Amino acid sequence: MDKEQSIISNFKHNLNGDDGAIIGDMVYSKDMFVEDIHFKSHWLSPKQIGKKAMIVNLSDAIAMNATPKYALLGLGLPKNLSNKYIKELSIGLKECAARYGTQIIGGDTILSNKLIISLTIISYLNSKKPLIRNGAKIGDIVCYTGVLGGSIKGLRTLLNGGKISSNSRFVTPNLRQEFIKQSAKWIRSGMDISDGLASDLPKITQNRAVKFNKKLSKFEFISGEEYEMLIVVPPKNIKRVLNQAKKCRVKLNLLGKIINERAKFHGKFTHF
Amino acid sequence: MDKEQSIISNFKHNLNGDDGAIIGDMVYSKDMFVEDIHFKSHWLSPKQIGKKAMIVNLSDAIAMNATPKYALLGLGLPKNLSNKYIKELSIGLKECAARYGTQIIGGDTILSNKLIISLTIISYLNSKKPLIRNGAKIGDIVCYTGVLGGSIKGLRTLLNGGKISSNSRFVTPNLRQEFIKQSAKWIRSGMDISDGLASDLPKITQNRAVKFNKKLSKFEFISGEEYEMLIVVPPKNIKRVLNQAKKCRVKLNLLGKIINERAKFHGKFTHF
Repeated sequence: MDKEQSIISNFKHNLNGDDGAIIGDMVYSKDMFVEDIHFKSHWLSPKQIGKKAMIVNLSDAIAMNATPKYALLGLGLPKNLSNKYIKELSIGLKECAARYGTQIIGGDTILSNKLIISLTIISYLNSKKPLIRNGAKIGDIVCYTGVLGGSIKGLRTLLNGGKISSNSRFVTPNLRQEFIKQSAKWIRSGMDISDGLASDLPKITQNRAVKFNKKLSKFEFISGEEYEMLIVVPPKNIKRVLNQAKKCRVKLNLLGKIINERAKFHGKFTHF
Repeated sequence: MDKEQSIISNFKHNLNGDDGAIIGDMVYSKDMFVEDIHFKSHWLSPKQIGKKAMIVNLSDAIAMNATPKYALLGLGLPKNLSNKYIKELSIGLKECAARYGTQIIGGDTILSNKLIISLTIISYLNSKKPLIRNGAKIGDIVCYTGVLGGSIKGLRTLLNGGKISSNSRFVTPNLRQEFIKQSAKWIRSGMDISDGLASDLPKITQNRAVKFNKKLSKFEFISGEEYEMLIVVPPKNIKRVLNQAKKCRVKLNLLGKIINERAKFHGKFTHF
């Protein structure tokens, strides 16, 4: 058990959802986005930092089939940041929140060594049943949205001192709000891809193997912070879900079928 | 306008309460408690750090006449912390939450240079009207609970390299949950004393002067992080409020009467 797992087990609680805690028809999610942990300050403009901090938080709610409504913002700000920088950061946060129908309603600000953006998102479930990670059955089809690999490519370019465009998935992930909202009733289970498929796939298949339809590149397999949706669909619903994806203009990839074997993939990377 | 004010004004929103944001009958409050900003790690045991981080967050809710029910916990943990230290920290957080009827229902953990405890408290208002800072009228009586000065004395001892007992107000503030709940209907406005009376008094009197009943020491006047309640009571209700304080075994100090003059006290310290 690693340190994070050990801490989480200290706070285990039955109201814990996967990425958010559920109380009544509301979902509460909370993530910190921190300089030198999630990004280097020279990689992104303050507006991009604000935008990405907000988007990765909204993703938790949207992945559970909830509509984010309110955000509480905790900011840890280094002394040397200019008012202009802070203003740009706040514009990034607010514009991104507004794009997803969310309002920033409060929070607090402190001085800190590193830039810290700590967000709590308050969301309403779109249906009585949230979309969760558990539930996959043998024979179900595993799918993911969009195109994977862009985030790690952007990250590697940055790590090598290069520059990336603001369209890079590392800067601007795509959330699939409408598609999830419309198709959740046909989906067995789901989550967003934040740690990379190699790490997130065993979570959604509950450590069962997948007979792949599709050969993935190493980049597609290990790229984290994609925030595309990884979903499991009963075979009888797959046509409806594909249709809905088309309506929402979301590319839906049929990755494979869950089989009655233990997964061979695990950890952050695997050979296949 | 200082930096914090400038940031807050970037996010000004009508759902903002004083220390918490109000949505329907719920209050959401969020505060960060950070090593080297709010405490030095050698000042407090990990259990005391957890306890104080929780108590200062619960105070925001209780001061608005709300009952805290759930907490979301964001932890930023330095690499070198032992599992034992983290375990003790989590016991402090959980025990303090439980004492006030609150459950930790989720959150996230990251690596960071300094210990960061970022809490979001979800509370239910005890009555339709929250207790807020605004509303004081000329002739109203300003009161505060308990004994002030202990927090700054503890802080100074620590800053001078001394040790303080776990009963020190700096380590263990006292929250006045029951008293506020029972007497809120007779109280005009209220807040907790977090920045010190010299700084918080003008907020509650809306920059009006107070004709003091009582001479305060410098320590009583400037001590922050007390988390005692500062309340404003219409004269016709003062007996009821005093009785309720007695029932709840809370010392209630009548500080003075609000008069039709501008306050002379302001900032973090004043002479009088």
